[in-house]
Amino acid sequence: MPQLDQVVRDIADEMAQRTDRGEVATYIPELARADTKAFGLVVIDAEGNIAAGGDSEIPFSIQSISKVFTLTLALGKAGDRLWKRVGREPSGSAFNSVVQLEYERGVPRNPFINAGAIAVTDLIVSGYQPREALAEILRFLRFLADDPSITVDEAVAASEARTGFRNIALANYMKAYGVLENPVDFTLGVYFHHCAIAMSCRQLAAAGRFLAYQGRNPVTGLSVVPPERARRINAIMLTCGHYDGSGEFAYRVGLPGKSGVGGGILAIAPGKASIAVWSPGLDASGNSRLGRIALEELTKRLGWSIFGA
Amino acid sequence: MPQLDQVVRDIADEMAQRTDRGEVATYIPELARADTKAFGLVVIDAEGNIAAGGDSEIPFSIQSISKVFTLTLALGKAGDRLWKRVGREPSGSAFNSVVQLEYERGVPRNPFINAGAIAVTDLIVSGYQPREALAEILRFLRFLADDPSITVDEAVAASEARTGFRNIALANYMKAYGVLENPVDFTLGVYFHHCAIAMSCRQLAAAGRFLAYQGRNPVTGLSVVPPERARRINAIMLTCGHYDGSGEFAYRVGLPGKSGVGGGILAIAPGKASIAVWSPGLDASGNSRLGRIALEELTKRLGWSIFGA
Amino acid sequence: MPQLDQVVRDIADEMAQRTDRGEVATYIPELARADTKAFGLVVIDAEGNIAAGGDSEIPFSIQSISKVFTLTLALGKAGDRLWKRVGREPSGSAFNSVVQLEYERGVPRNPFINAGAIAVTDLIVSGYQPREALAEILRFLRFLADDPSITVDEAVAASEARTGFRNIALANYMKAYGVLENPVDFTLGVYFHHCAIAMSCRQLAAAGRFLAYQGRNPVTGLSVVPPERARRINAIMLTCGHYDGSGEFAYRVGLPGKSGVGGGILAIAPGKASIAVWSPGLDASGNSRLGRIALEELTKRLGWSIFGA
Amino acid sequence: MPQLDQVVRDIADEMAQRTDRGEVATYIPELARADTKAFGLVVIDAEGNIAAGGDSEIPFSIQSISKVFTLTLALGKAGDRLWKRVGREPSGSAFNSVVQLEYERGVPRNPFINAGAIAVTDLIVSGYQPREALAEILRFLRFLADDPSITVDEAVAASEARTGFRNIALANYMKAYGVLENPVDFTLGVYFHHCAIAMSCRQLAAAGRFLAYQGRNPVTGLSVVPPERARRINAIMLTCGHYDGSGEFAYRVGLPGKSGVGGGILAIAPGKASIAVWSPGLDASGNSRLGRIALEELTKRLGWSIFGA
Repeated sequence: MPQLDQVVRDIADEMAQRTDRGEVATYIPELARADTKAFGLVVIDAEGNIAAGGDSEIPFSIQSISKVFTLTLALGKAGDRLWKRVGREPSGSAFNSVVQLEYERGVPRNPFINAGAIAVTDLIVSGYQPREALAEILRFLRFLADDPSITVDEAVAASEARTGFRNIALANYMKAYGVLENPVDFTLGVYFHHCAIAMSCRQLAAAGRFLAYQGRNPVTGLSVVPPERARRINAIMLTCGHYDGSGEFAYRVGLPGKSGVGGGILAIAPGKASIAVWSPGLDASGNSRLGRIALEELTKRLGWSIFGA
Repeated sequence: MPQLDQVVRDIADEMAQRTDRGEVATYIPELARADTKAFGLVVIDAEGNIAAGGDSEIPFSIQSISKVFTLTLALGKAGDRLWKRVGREPSGSAFNSVVQLEYERGVPRNPFINAGAIAVTDLIVSGYQPREALAEILRFLRFLADDPSITVDEAVAASEARTGFRNIALANYMKAYGVLENPVDFTLGVYFHHCAIAMSCRQLAAAGRFLAYQGRNPVTGLSVVPPERARRINAIMLTCGHYDGSGEFAYRVGLPGKSGVGGGILAIAPGKASIAVWSPGLDASGNSRLGRIALEELTKRLGWSIFGA
Repeated sequence: MPQLDQVVRDIADEMAQRTDRGEVATYIPELARADTKAFGLVVIDAEGNIAAGGDSEIPFSIQSISKVFTLTLALGKAGDRLWKRVGREPSGSAFNSVVQLEYERGVPRNPFINAGAIAVTDLIVSGYQPREALAEILRFLRFLADDPSITVDEAVAASEARTGFRNIALANYMKAYGVLENPVDFTLGVYFHHCAIAMSCRQLAAAGRFLAYQGRNPVTGLSVVPPERARRINAIMLTCGHYDGSGEFAYRVGLPGKSGVGGGILAIAPGKASIAVWSPGLDASGNSRLGRIALEELTKRLGWSIFGA
Repeated sequence: MPQLDQVVRDIADEMAQRTDRGEVATYIPELARADTKAFGLVVIDAEGNIAAGGDSEIPFSIQSISKVFTLTLALGKAGDRLWKRVGREPSGSAFNSVVQLEYERGVPRNPFINAGAIAVTDLIVSGYQPREALAEILRFLRFLADDPSITVDEAVAASEARTGFRNIALANYMKAYGVLENPVDFTLGVYFHHCAIAMSCRQLAAAGRFLAYQGRNPVTGLSVVPPERARRINAIMLTCGHYDGSGEFAYRVGLPGKSGVGGGILAIAPGKASIAVWSPGLDASGNSRLGRIALEELTKRLGWSIFGA
């Protein structure tokens, strides 16, 4: 796979030279320390070949990317019951998502806005102690990435818990409408922790493989979810995966993806590859600036857009 | 292409027997007369083969599907300048789109909600008389479908103009914010008329071919738009093409598509086919109920979802 | 009544020297020509004594103050039926009033926001030609002020009609929800014209007398409305009379009042006086800056606040 | 004062016979137990005469009426600095108040909606332990009512703390925007407790006297606040005192007032009387149904409306 290797290395080199790197998220104090110079990119194809560039082994805070995995886990546990607690429509701006949460009586628009992801976490927590629920999420990620070293960055988790007033507000709104089952503290505790999981690009790309290959690990053949579910999760990533920049990401990159304010993005080229990119500087919509540009270049050079070669 | 023919015929037969056909749109009096029993489906592949089922030759009011073609035309005229007048992010509910229009000072979220499509039409009108602008749109559709018989249903256009108070309101809001250049009456006149264009499934599928094949007609080889633009229009169709049911359509069907309240849907399987379906009964989000179900079956049976086989 | 005379003259003198006069409304081009140096104040007491200061005889565009008189007229015509078309609750910000109009399905919050006043005008128009309806409004104002010279400033009316896109939008929203009965053009034509009526402070204070004295002219004894209706109109003026500055006006001035973007304010001291003030410079909420300050001084010096001496 | 006595007794008798008593608030479980048959009315005039009818000595949960007293206390502590944390404009519907809180970046519209009252409580808490802050509020109420027996109903306070998710959400929103200074738990603890203070109509009418008489107790002559501040608090009660029924209360009753979901209303007739009424059944806006009707009758019979005799 020389061509892919070359493309990944070229892009990593080009990104290293760019100066327009966006701004690091500051609302979680612990994230504000991230190095804007960092950039990593890993692509894993159907044969298990890995093309890596830049800081591909440095763990970063996956933040909202964890929502893809908690959604997968919760769908496995609750099936279509999940869709009574959360919708699957894109939500417009952050301003709008509060208005909409109120307008739609506490039911969040989709599982990838914060309110929706908290509702999904609540489903995972039901029937468990918070500690057990978190352990289950970690176990799932270690299994997907085939890497037992993945763990929570406790400093980040503590930082989020201390400053996450907006998330506490959202959770209590939903609780007021009966959308959450568990004590708000339990659910938020697990939510803050799974957002604080740290992974490298290599680990993240490995964890995302099942979404690219009909729900299974293409090398081991192990099934994670049925093919239809993998397609559907991809669909939600495409329409809702980048906050109020979801339309922009689809327009420019043309792949299902999920970003996190830690600067990571997981992108899926169905049938072709699982891709992870990381650069901590964010654009105005809160998505990794260089991460999005790198993915745009990658799909352009390889003809991977799902919207046409 | 026996398999495709068979699938299309099977689906048309199955749809003919369903009784849950949704409700015909009544807010445009002329559309309320449509026959809920109607159903048509046409698929055109890369070789120009046509698979047709049901009422594939009966013209219906394309309504909002026209927005795909006016967007294409306006991008050709104005290029990326267009994106100063309209965004490309999904918009949430109808309620939200008014809130958002006000919140974002008259700039509509995307070209496929009514406000956005009116802004796009305004760009086409600039520099022309309304009559000329409408003629240009018709000429473009006749060229794409290779069918000079396509025309406007004047009774529908008059019905919309008489009862389109909400669209008049939206247009005047945008005018108040300086987003529209032309007299509101001019722009709305053209808008009401292009929404009232009547086409059959066969004509519509033919007109959509360039979006499936890198911007060109695969048989004649004639280029309509550059490949990148075709991909990008597909991306906007996927994220914004079905009002507040866009997420649902992506989740269930997995193809870029654009629906109209006349009951038509144009769907694109990139590299594989241009598809048109029509059934006048609508679901709660205003999209053709059987149309969506038929497309879900089609992509499932043929493995055409862009989110994975 | 020497004391009142003195207070009015003092205030007029003080206002003449202030330099913080606010900004003239510019969204109606014709109003933008107003002289920010102008200031007028007239108080008429129960005995018909008139205390006047400054430019008390210069006619200005009464704009939204006309809504007090159209509400009175419409209540006389339709009685409590009027309250099916419009509420009587304050509405928050301009942003909010659109959101609310949409949220409450086209029923405006109160008769003093633009949407509400348009709905009130629509009631007056019903059964008449626009020209007759406007004539009725003018007749009513001339009767109240006992001055046949009051008339519409046609240049202002034309200016509003040409640039009133926001009002056209509001009217069409309401029409879409069935809140307006008449053709939008008819109702808006009358609305734009009654907002363009020109009156001097002296004429305006005279026209407002019935609100201060239990619904009747205290000198002639002629009844305009029953006492209860006068109280109720005063109540609506207090809670809704100054756009998003209504709370502020109640807090600082403590009198029912209605402002217009022409810089006029009509204020009522129940049982004591009818007051008109005019100064074209506006504050951030669109109310006359010096007008409000003058009224605050007046009520303070005379102990006229309805909230306690 | 025979006439007043008679009017109060008549109204209490009439109310006892009405069957349209509204619905008791159920969202705070402890309040749901209230007896809908209860009705009390107390009027205290300038000479200290007390006219009482019905259940005038039974303590009830004053709930939001406490916001009048915490506002008074906070203005004494912080003066006009308070208005940097909270506005004084009416807010429209409950739906709107969330939209507006988000739109205005965490600054509540006025001190009488929940968010605003929480911001006011936060000011009282600053520099104190929650226990001390609550003690100060209780001391103030006991002083105003001249009755050391007033106390918090701990069962109600606990019930609110357990179920007040919406208030927790509002407080955390404001905290996210930096509008609250103290730990959210501290401020909400004090808020839930002062809302759970129990008072009888007699105690409440006594506590409100300073608002009717230029800021002082008319019998002892003791000053509580300057006259201007009393007027201003009355103005805020009139424009914002009854949630989304504030306009209705001004329209029908014509007095400054503040209601609570416990079914109590404190109303002020400036210069004439302090009035407390209680009946637990609420109307659609969350205000005491019979309480409002009784006050409407009282002002009508005594000619006490501030909007004209």
